[in-house]
Amino acid sequence: MSEGDVVLGLVLGISVLSFVFAGFLAYSVLRKDCGTKEMQKVSDAIREGANAFIVRQYTTIAVFSVVLGVLIFCVYAFFGKFDFGLRTSVAFLFGAFCSGLAGVIGLWISVRTNVRVASASRRSLDEALKIAFRGGAVSGVLIVAMSLAGVGVLYWVYSVSLPVAEVPFLVVGFGFGASFVALFAQLGGGIYTKGADVGADLVGKVEKGIPEDDPRNPAVIADLVGDNVGDCAGRGADLFESTAAENIGAMILGVALYPFFGVSGVLFPLVARASGLIASMIGILCVYNKKGEDPMTSLNRGYYITAFLAALFFAAATYWMLGDYWFWFFMAGLVGIITSVLIVWITVYYTEQSYRPVKSIAKASQTGSATNIMIGFAVALETTALPVVVLAAALLLTYNFGVRSGVPGGGLYGTAIATMGMLSTCAFVLAMDTFGPITDNAGGIVQMSGQSESYRRITDRLDAVGNTTKALTKGYAIGSAALASFLLFSAYLDEVAKYAGSVPVVDLSHVPVFVGGMLGAMLVFLFTSFAIRAVGQTAFEVVNEVRRQFKEIKGLSEGRSRPDYARCVDICARTSLKEMVLPGVFVVGLTVAVGVLLHAEAMGAYLMVSTITGILMALMLNTGGGAWDNAKKYIEEGSFGGKGSEAHKAAVIGDTLGDPFKDTAGPSLHVLIKLLSTLTLVLAPLFV
Amino acid sequence: MSEGDVVLGLVLGISVLSFVFAGFLAYSVLRKDCGTKEMQKVSDAIREGANAFIVRQYTTIAVFSVVLGVLIFCVYAFFGKFDFGLRTSVAFLFGAFCSGLAGVIGLWISVRTNVRVASASRRSLDEALKIAFRGGAVSGVLIVAMSLAGVGVLYWVYSVSLPVAEVPFLVVGFGFGASFVALFAQLGGGIYTKGADVGADLVGKVEKGIPEDDPRNPAVIADLVGDNVGDCAGRGADLFESTAAENIGAMILGVALYPFFGVSGVLFPLVARASGLIASMIGILCVYNKKGEDPMTSLNRGYYITAFLAALFFAAATYWMLGDYWFWFFMAGLVGIITSVLIVWITVYYTEQSYRPVKSIAKASQTGSATNIMIGFAVALETTALPVVVLAAALLLTYNFGVRSGVPGGGLYGTAIATMGMLSTCAFVLAMDTFGPITDNAGGIVQMSGQSESYRRITDRLDAVGNTTKALTKGYAIGSAALASFLLFSAYLDEVAKYAGSVPVVDLSHVPVFVGGMLGAMLVFLFTSFAIRAVGQTAFEVVNEVRRQFKEIKGLSEGRSRPDYARCVDICARTSLKEMVLPGVFVVGLTVAVGVLLHAEAMGAYLMVSTITGILMALMLNTGGGAWDNAKKYIEEGSFGGKGSEAHKAAVIGDTLGDPFKDTAGPSLHVLIKLLSTLTLVLAPLFV
Repeated sequence: MSEGDVVLGLVLGISVLSFVFAGFLAYSVLRKDCGTKEMQKVSDAIREGANAFIVRQYTTIAVFSVVLGVLIFCVYAFFGKFDFGLRTSVAFLFGAFCSGLAGVIGLWISVRTNVRVASASRRSLDEALKIAFRGGAVSGVLIVAMSLAGVGVLYWVYSVSLPVAEVPFLVVGFGFGASFVALFAQLGGGIYTKGADVGADLVGKVEKGIPEDDPRNPAVIADLVGDNVGDCAGRGADLFESTAAENIGAMILGVALYPFFGVSGVLFPLVARASGLIASMIGILCVYNKKGEDPMTSLNRGYYITAFLAALFFAAATYWMLGDYWFWFFMAGLVGIITSVLIVWITVYYTEQSYRPVKSIAKASQTGSATNIMIGFAVALETTALPVVVLAAALLLTYNFGVRSGVPGGGLYGTAIATMGMLSTCAFVLAMDTFGPITDNAGGIVQMSGQSESYRRITDRLDAVGNTTKALTKGYAIGSAALASFLLFSAYLDEVAKYAGSVPVVDLSHVPVFVGGMLGAMLVFLFTSFAIRAVGQTAFEVVNEVRRQFKEIKGLSEGRSRPDYARCVDICARTSLKEMVLPGVFVVGLTVAVGVLLHAEAMGAYLMVSTITGILMALMLNTGGGAWDNAKKYIEEGSFGGKGSEAHKAAVIGDTLGDPFKDTAGPSLHVLIKLLSTLTLVLAPLFV
Repeated sequence: MSEGDVVLGLVLGISVLSFVFAGFLAYSVLRKDCGTKEMQKVSDAIREGANAFIVRQYTTIAVFSVVLGVLIFCVYAFFGKFDFGLRTSVAFLFGAFCSGLAGVIGLWISVRTNVRVASASRRSLDEALKIAFRGGAVSGVLIVAMSLAGVGVLYWVYSVSLPVAEVPFLVVGFGFGASFVALFAQLGGGIYTKGADVGADLVGKVEKGIPEDDPRNPAVIADLVGDNVGDCAGRGADLFESTAAENIGAMILGVALYPFFGVSGVLFPLVARASGLIASMIGILCVYNKKGEDPMTSLNRGYYITAFLAALFFAAATYWMLGDYWFWFFMAGLVGIITSVLIVWITVYYTEQSYRPVKSIAKASQTGSATNIMIGFAVALETTALPVVVLAAALLLTYNFGVRSGVPGGGLYGTAIATMGMLSTCAFVLAMDTFGPITDNAGGIVQMSGQSESYRRITDRLDAVGNTTKALTKGYAIGSAALASFLLFSAYLDEVAKYAGSVPVVDLSHVPVFVGGMLGAMLVFLFTSFAIRAVGQTAFEVVNEVRRQFKEIKGLSEGRSRPDYARCVDICARTSLKEMVLPGVFVVGLTVAVGVLLHAEAMGAYLMVSTITGILMALMLNTGGGAWDNAKKYIEEGSFGGKGSEAHKAAVIGDTLGDPFKDTAGPSLHVLIKLLSTLTLVLAPLFV
């Protein structure tokens, strides 16, 4: 058995172990009771709506994927590379399938966990917290393990008949397939969830003055379905392709160091990921709620344990795989882990009620929604600064560490290892993220099934924590996307060099390169425009439908008759499926057009400038949206007049605007950034 | 007399002719009558407020300028280049002085024209239009002529004792000085005008339901003062430095072609500018209003005549100066002129009520301000796409023309000449721009002095046209800033090459270069944040003050007592002076830090990525703001329920948000882009 086989065997073994662990978590959640009949009725309605949407959505995505898979084969066949094309195409379809599966699994478990959390809220905070978090952890662990296993299996199969140095370039298709499906999943789900949420809030809270998740609101079921299809399925697919793309990008850089490290350099990313997975699983088991403890503290404990263990395992992995050169690369990995912690802290500063930014938005609400939005927008723009400084420092430092390692060309490998370090806590972070929509749903179920106020208080506490973790994950996801895409960019240059014979120089002072950069930035603006408009239009239809029902259904306002939930569910499903297609097709089309017309160097600038602009835009949208949300909560808790005051109404408007920012456009941009990287990697021969 | 002397003599002669022409226009405006006593009273209050602010503002700016002028000298002295440093420093102060003067002159004439337009509105639309436009044209012509004369004189003085090829590098200080003052002028003025405007609208229109410019509104005088200090003084300084920077950038590129064209290549930019000035003056004289004609048609006639003449003169200038190679360079200039027309058309599409974008925002207002802002933001993001495509095509085409000309290294000179073509109609466009605040003021004076409704209808028609021309100018200014900054970027590389010995390669795949790009994009986001927050805070204070006056001054709502206008004027002046300092200092500080720490290549990426991001952000802010404004007007004219409906209230909120977008942050970004270019040019030796 070669060294490569040992490593791969170990990696796949850890993947299998993770599957078993996820199964154990799922079992421990599903054996809990499903609560009262009323609770189950609400939960069934949510599950049915979610299932119906997901079937329609993934059917559409499957058609697009198969078409693109065939096209990829044709492109390579056109260049006479049948075998290469077939393998890339198969990898693409396999990646697309796994990405879809990741989304479906995330959804499957969350629509079953929600009602169990609702039920447990009648017993204790600790139990409710544990169920919600473990439900989230099922997706978290499964998704990371699947991306690891997928890349590992593909590598193993392809390396039977091909030289090791060529395999990572073939596996690229896997990452592209994953990103492609993730883009549609995130966009479609994001439009659905926020169209419903905004529509429900605008009529319910602003016009009618009824509380969140009130059963009289015709859009409330659509809203709860949206939490699942947007936040669970979408984010699952997002982080699945993040880890897949990063694995592959780092492996390609490893190929460049092949003469130096041998197969160890190529396979190191998989080992690093596997060790992070083990750290995350231990961290997940450490989450429990001490009596009287803030639930956020419980989650943070698990997170810090995970980060600490990840650093420890990282040291072992570098020492084992990279031998004498381990130290500086371990330091680079450590910088990656620290970067993720810093970005999480920065996100907390900008989205928590106890700090200046959120307070300033709340204060500005006193003079109406216009000043709320102005100050909110200013905060949103400001949130980009610190993360960029941290990422810049991380890139410069780890590049420097890589150079210091003494490995020729090791600088970029240093930044690659920082990305691995950053993503090593991925499974844990993803668990925290999926925790959000589960607790949100649980709160909805408690409210709609008419349970006592004291249970609702428990789910409210969990929900508030869920809002924070959702914001954190987005900061984390965009930070790792930034590092991963720089990695993939280097891989792209290597790939182009393979075809063109020399590494392209992406010199911005050349007119076509500058133009490529300009078009890349434009792509980000236009894509964001599509996403936000789609939510605006869906919300417009939902508002009109909800207004119609309140007007036409007698006794609805007084709670004497039931609204027609299905109509709102249908509007959201229809509109979001329609609206997700254009942006997706546009992104692929423009990128191919720029690459073919302006060639590889301009494509490089297109890629990098769109990445930079995308990172900033996504930070602005995500963190800004979170700040608006919590400014509203801050007022609801009694500041500046509290619930029902003019300031509160203004803050609801701001929150509503923040919704598509943080849950549709922002997360879709993460996917976009990585989609562009993997797309250009796969189609590089077209651009030479 | 050498050829250079002949050319310079001609250029300065045309400048003097333009001064005389501007004097004639001013005379023809000032000899008109000043209207009734009531009108003069309002006008006096505006003039006093504007004068008081401008004195305080320019005193602050002067202090900063002198400090920076000394610092520049010290930097060069540190490198042992006393003579060079002294000359650059003098050029800087001269540029700063001229830029300030441009702002003051623009203000001086507009606060005198406004009341004369108000008075003429009692006689005829034609007369009112002519006075307003000629008042605007005084600034337009003077500013362009001053920038031409300033660069010409400096060149003449410095070329006495220095070789021709070195002079343009010294004149760079002039552009930097101009940009530096323009940044503060535009920021301070922009914060003032929108703080007052937003504050006045939020209480007046939304809370009290009183019309625009109603004398009962305590913030109305501050609002009218703001139009002058923001739109006139700010935009004047903005376009002054645009033309100055472009002249200098193109001259530096001309230096690279010195072995080929001799002094003609260096001085051609000045000749091109002078010929455009003549075209604009003829165009200005062609503006009059035929009976029953839409005033926009009258202005358009003048604009198209100017563009046509500019093309004609451009052909003559290229033929005279560039000899056998004229044809492709003339074609490049023509592309520049066509680009400016296309960008104007695109802006019209996005801001006029008859097209889809504005209508979609108005429609979304029916479901409240949240959907209005969502769809408006989507439109704002979308507006970036077409201008970027046009600019990309213009750059690629004119580079290609330059290469075809057969001149070695002529590609970049082709893009430089496109910039000259684009800016050749500058004086006319600037006249249209200043027309905006003048008519806005005239309407305010008519309303506040209690004139008949029929006069107000005339000023309203002019005001509507003024809103359109203000939007157009911004599109035009940002388009030309994009081209000019690419030019200045090339000049920067030449400058660095002078010190480093070789042209730097701005390769984005190098980590520090990528980091530089990321920080450049971040600068744009953070700067925009500062600008919008400043307006939000000023508006917050104004709203509270206006609310206080309505509550405490008895009989104010009924019009029986007078509000305390001076308090609002004072709040705006104080806040805007305070808030303009930080962003300005931050921009200079960060740029120097990045350059010194990461060096010339990373600085190149910083410059280019901030330019790209800045162009897109400015387009989004400017055109988006204009669209929101006109969506409100569309509803006010009777659609979706008309004035006073819920849709109208929602649209006013959207308009209010658009105000700091289009009149503070957006225009300040134009200046920022060029400030960065000239700043890096001047400080290049620090970065090597």
